[in-house]
Amino acid sequence: MVKQSLIFVKPGELRLDEYHKDDEPSETEVLIDVAACGICGSDLHWHLEGNIGPWYARKEASMGHEASGTVIKVGSKVTHLKPGDRVCCEPCEPCWTCDLCRIGSNNLCHAADSTCAGADKTGFFRTTNVWPAILCHKLPDNMTLKEGALVEPFACCIWAIRRAKLEGNEKILITGSGPIGIICLMIVKAFGASKVCITDLNEERLSASKNFGADYTLLVDSKQTPQQIAEKVNQIMGGPPDVAIDCTGVGSCINTGIIGVRRGGKVLLQGLGSKGVNVDLSTASLRQVDLLGVARYNNTFPAAIDLISSGRVNAKGLVSHIVSLGDYQQAFDLLKKGKGMKILLAPKVDIIQ
Amino acid sequence: MVKQSLIFVKPGELRLDEYHKDDEPSETEVLIDVAACGICGSDLHWHLEGNIGPWYARKEASMGHEASGTVIKVGSKVTHLKPGDRVCCEPCEPCWTCDLCRIGSNNLCHAADSTCAGADKTGFFRTTNVWPAILCHKLPDNMTLKEGALVEPFACCIWAIRRAKLEGNEKILITGSGPIGIICLMIVKAFGASKVCITDLNEERLSASKNFGADYTLLVDSKQTPQQIAEKVNQIMGGPPDVAIDCTGVGSCINTGIIGVRRGGKVLLQGLGSKGVNVDLSTASLRQVDLLGVARYNNTFPAAIDLISSGRVNAKGLVSHIVSLGDYQQAFDLLKKGKGMKILLAPKVDIIQ
Amino acid sequence: MVKQSLIFVKPGELRLDEYHKDDEPSETEVLIDVAACGICGSDLHWHLEGNIGPWYARKEASMGHEASGTVIKVGSKVTHLKPGDRVCCEPCEPCWTCDLCRIGSNNLCHAADSTCAGADKTGFFRTTNVWPAILCHKLPDNMTLKEGALVEPFACCIWAIRRAKLEGNEKILITGSGPIGIICLMIVKAFGASKVCITDLNEERLSASKNFGADYTLLVDSKQTPQQIAEKVNQIMGGPPDVAIDCTGVGSCINTGIIGVRRGGKVLLQGLGSKGVNVDLSTASLRQVDLLGVARYNNTFPAAIDLISSGRVNAKGLVSHIVSLGDYQQAFDLLKKGKGMKILLAPKVDIIQ
Amino acid sequence: MVKQSLIFVKPGELRLDEYHKDDEPSETEVLIDVAACGICGSDLHWHLEGNIGPWYARKEASMGHEASGTVIKVGSKVTHLKPGDRVCCEPCEPCWTCDLCRIGSNNLCHAADSTCAGADKTGFFRTTNVWPAILCHKLPDNMTLKEGALVEPFACCIWAIRRAKLEGNEKILITGSGPIGIICLMIVKAFGASKVCITDLNEERLSASKNFGADYTLLVDSKQTPQQIAEKVNQIMGGPPDVAIDCTGVGSCINTGIIGVRRGGKVLLQGLGSKGVNVDLSTASLRQVDLLGVARYNNTFPAAIDLISSGRVNAKGLVSHIVSLGDYQQAFDLLKKGKGMKILLAPKVDIIQ
Repeated sequence: MVKQSLIFVKPGELRLDEYHKDDEPSETEVLIDVAACGICGSDLHWHLEGNIGPWYARKEASMGHEASGTVIKVGSKVTHLKPGDRVCCEPCEPCWTCDLCRIGSNNLCHAADSTCAGADKTGFFRTTNVWPAILCHKLPDNMTLKEGALVEPFACCIWAIRRAKLEGNEKILITGSGPIGIICLMIVKAFGASKVCITDLNEERLSASKNFGADYTLLVDSKQTPQQIAEKVNQIMGGPPDVAIDCTGVGSCINTGIIGVRRGGKVLLQGLGSKGVNVDLSTASLRQVDLLGVARYNNTFPAAIDLISSGRVNAKGLVSHIVSLGDYQQAFDLLKKGKGMKILLAPKVDIIQ
Repeated sequence: MVKQSLIFVKPGELRLDEYHKDDEPSETEVLIDVAACGICGSDLHWHLEGNIGPWYARKEASMGHEASGTVIKVGSKVTHLKPGDRVCCEPCEPCWTCDLCRIGSNNLCHAADSTCAGADKTGFFRTTNVWPAILCHKLPDNMTLKEGALVEPFACCIWAIRRAKLEGNEKILITGSGPIGIICLMIVKAFGASKVCITDLNEERLSASKNFGADYTLLVDSKQTPQQIAEKVNQIMGGPPDVAIDCTGVGSCINTGIIGVRRGGKVLLQGLGSKGVNVDLSTASLRQVDLLGVARYNNTFPAAIDLISSGRVNAKGLVSHIVSLGDYQQAFDLLKKGKGMKILLAPKVDIIQ
Repeated sequence: MVKQSLIFVKPGELRLDEYHKDDEPSETEVLIDVAACGICGSDLHWHLEGNIGPWYARKEASMGHEASGTVIKVGSKVTHLKPGDRVCCEPCEPCWTCDLCRIGSNNLCHAADSTCAGADKTGFFRTTNVWPAILCHKLPDNMTLKEGALVEPFACCIWAIRRAKLEGNEKILITGSGPIGIICLMIVKAFGASKVCITDLNEERLSASKNFGADYTLLVDSKQTPQQIAEKVNQIMGGPPDVAIDCTGVGSCINTGIIGVRRGGKVLLQGLGSKGVNVDLSTASLRQVDLLGVARYNNTFPAAIDLISSGRVNAKGLVSHIVSLGDYQQAFDLLKKGKGMKILLAPKVDIIQ
Repeated sequence: MVKQSLIFVKPGELRLDEYHKDDEPSETEVLIDVAACGICGSDLHWHLEGNIGPWYARKEASMGHEASGTVIKVGSKVTHLKPGDRVCCEPCEPCWTCDLCRIGSNNLCHAADSTCAGADKTGFFRTTNVWPAILCHKLPDNMTLKEGALVEPFACCIWAIRRAKLEGNEKILITGSGPIGIICLMIVKAFGASKVCITDLNEERLSASKNFGADYTLLVDSKQTPQQIAEKVNQIMGGPPDVAIDCTGVGSCINTGIIGVRRGGKVLLQGLGSKGVNVDLSTASLRQVDLLGVARYNNTFPAAIDLISSGRVNAKGLVSHIVSLGDYQQAFDLLKKGKGMKILLAPKVDIIQ
């Protein structure tokens, strides 16, 4: 069978290559038959602009970092996996022993910055890929490969939510009803939130969130001030939320959180926006609101797998489209138009359905 | 003796009133012979602009909220104080029983907003003042009334620093070498900081910080970028600081913290600036840096008293000028020019020296 | 109508008194028509031994502290309640302003020790009772008075579980399948636990826990060592639990937790046993297991009400018997035999059913 | 030169072996010329009983795990060290990648249990030793090899104290005035404790603690009850301590902590006693006192080095004796009699003095 690999050529240009021979896994790696790989919002930036935050696309790199697949071959020192195992993959490889890794922050490891699938290392918009075994987590029997491709974004959102140190029964505001907003919604509900209100400019996305458990939705438009939106949220929820999870990176949304949460509340910075945003930090200070940074996932793959496989969240409900590698352009077009929800690229669409 | 009271008339205009009769304390209040009351940076805003953050000056209000004095008379239900006791005073009165008070956040109590000395309630730039007994803390014998007037800003800074949840031996960056910056410096050193670097535009203030234990100082100018300053700090300190305490409220200083602290570090928002600041929250998120709001003091008067009276900090060294109430204009002029360090207004200058 | 009051006479002896006239509420109190009051495990100790922990029964005191009822009359300064409101009642009154109250630990307030319903203050095994309005929480419309009587134990267990600082998706071991164990079970499930295993000596109680969501149950007998039980739990759960909640106060159960949780895990001391227990603190230290004290409830009545009224827990399912005040002996007999689950005493059984 | 190695033969019996040839370091190891190695309390248990906690002495093993020395030779992949570097050594090697290592708890890693110097791996009561380079920390220029041998116990105590999450200005009780108690004393003072009271049965040790900064000392005898001692401490300190650090492992000392700390306080289990102790966990629960386990050190070598080299603690003042390897019996005899404070074994006594 001919194998395919989706390549970032330059900002705005992708190319589908063919290849015939797989790379050989080293003694600590495995070769994976990729089943599916989700397209992340950051992939769109990557595709169109060739960078996100401080990271820049390597030329001619294969993209994709939300992958599931089946192990085909294992390196000689790999003990926890064998051919036939179905896995999902952590996309970045920390060094494990630097100061940050040692204190439990391997998500902040500098080495991980340059070892991410789809960035410096070959990604998973490919038919097969060689990957460090230590980053591959076996899927339980009751979990599909389709669900496996959702583990990475769930792991990221679990980590975000852990940073908020929820105590149970909080009221939560989520700004942004895309896949990340909805995943956060499902997780906070599973972790004991009392009520969740979610806002968006896009009515379609907003109404989708109802199906995933949103207690309240609020359609906003860009003419409304954060103050106005915060008051609406307060009204709808019968009081201010304890925590706001911003999934947009937009200054006015972050300000809605700063103004809208209760005094002593928190705003999670889960969305990535432009480098400079204008926000009201004086009010954050006076109201003692904390703005919490959130980097990647942090040892949260096992919890994400457990959460999805237990049925406490409706992960697979998020997948709106499964598109073959060859139809990648159609997939990115949907994303550009804000259509659908989670889109997976799959080398063999028929087996993933 | 004629008694005096410094009155806020309108933005830019103060007036010294005389009065002859003291108000009578209620059964839960005490009458205090004011010894000294520090001028806070916020008093200057108050004086010149008539507001700070969401708060607006009440017309014809007496100002001042960093007070010490001697109890003259006590209400019938006051048991923990008696005439002759030397005290310092919490300036704002929480309700004690709202949701926020109950969880230990009486600094965030809405009732406290409208019960602050110098704002909605008569302040301490006065010869005498009636004050709720529950807000008055007795000074230990070895502590002077001059030191007593410094308890409030120490209590605020202790609270700020507690929010950072230091674990001991951290490297700390302080942006802003005014009284608040230097108080923070003394506290983090007393609480186990490894090394402290302090930055300012004002060379005089910066060099003063050396006397209070700064390990490193860095003179900055407004043409330098946060990135440049952060790199300098990193160089000087032999690595990035764990925590940045911003005592300016200026966006570029907060950005220096966001960029300059180690990944997973924290930026304390201890300074109050304009409502909107342009900051790089994407980088904060990617580096997992938390921006922590800090409201007033939170049950930290006892610790501040203990810290000062134990000699672990050099509180009285901060006082650059003690000015009589009648010379208030001179005091505010010094402040406007950034001269001196902590300035106290005292009804009877000779006894406070 | 004749009113009744259940009185503790001396250890082992209760008496049902009649009274005709209600006490008059002070200006900050309300008079409550008691609907139901749960019998707590501590009430049995109280009844039989006249004490629990450091507290001793006041002679001729009315017992009962898990109450719901309807407001009949309100004091002149009460603003948040009016006659006809259905409420549940916090049983102990803190002073709100001591050092412990101020830092958010009003559950530890010394004043609260001597102001508890059923101990130093008249309790709720009575037809009516006068109670501080500030301790009365209005029930939402969709919540029954029967459910209202369960708020207190839920509030206690929510507080216990908050002390464990769960991050979501933990595996939990609960030792003891009585009402407190099962309430903890329901709460941790609602707050995001992955799997819960519950142990007991009593097969009937254990099997009841299945209906409340226990993933695993383990019948133990007193001949098994903590080591053996811990290993069984590990086997059943596919690994060690992260947190053990002891609801027995028995040394061997606490040891099961110490040995059984994962390294770095926690044991919540939710049960009260005898003053001295023999436990393996060397192993706790070496495995870095924390034993966490849990005192009463801590500002958790609102969350308990919200949790119950939202239907996320099956509170009313816990009530096995509703017994009239006159049949109190039958209720205590059931409790002594370990029969049933939660037993409520009700002045008017017919309206509470 | 003849090289020596102190060998554990069987409980109660040691033997000094000679050897001539050093082991060859692997590519990730270094060969160290041992300068000094402290005798830990656990070494005495090891020597006399052949075990401590769950660990048992390997036959014919060289003991010693608190070492400093000079690098003689480095493996081919070692980059951060070179011959001539002066180092101190972490004694146990975690796997870095298990679930516990990944969350920042490499002190709890199961692999570390069987890779500890002096237990399963050759220890440092030897002239030279081969050790994993990743566990070797370079000493700063201003730090002596004598001080280097104290880094391990300081790292352990820093970790213990971090577990208490001090906020600054706490009152601390330390039970046990041996080396560990005094190191804890120095650290909490450096990290901002307000006052420290230390207790012991041994007057000599107690009075030594004064030189290291103890504010109060209390000589206790074994006939006093925990209640009596707790009251004395309360009296001396002018109120209950916030935290008790038990450095004895004895039940009655832990009970003194449980009873003596303020409500909501903490007891650190830093001492290791017998497996079963009788403690009053009911009182711990009612007073909401947490008993915190403490395992080894946790990434605290860098902080320990910084603390010692900065002069904020008087580490070298702890060393009461430096004894040559050949005189090991004399060293252990001193320890048995509770004489002296920290005793170091040194292959070449003259250069370490």
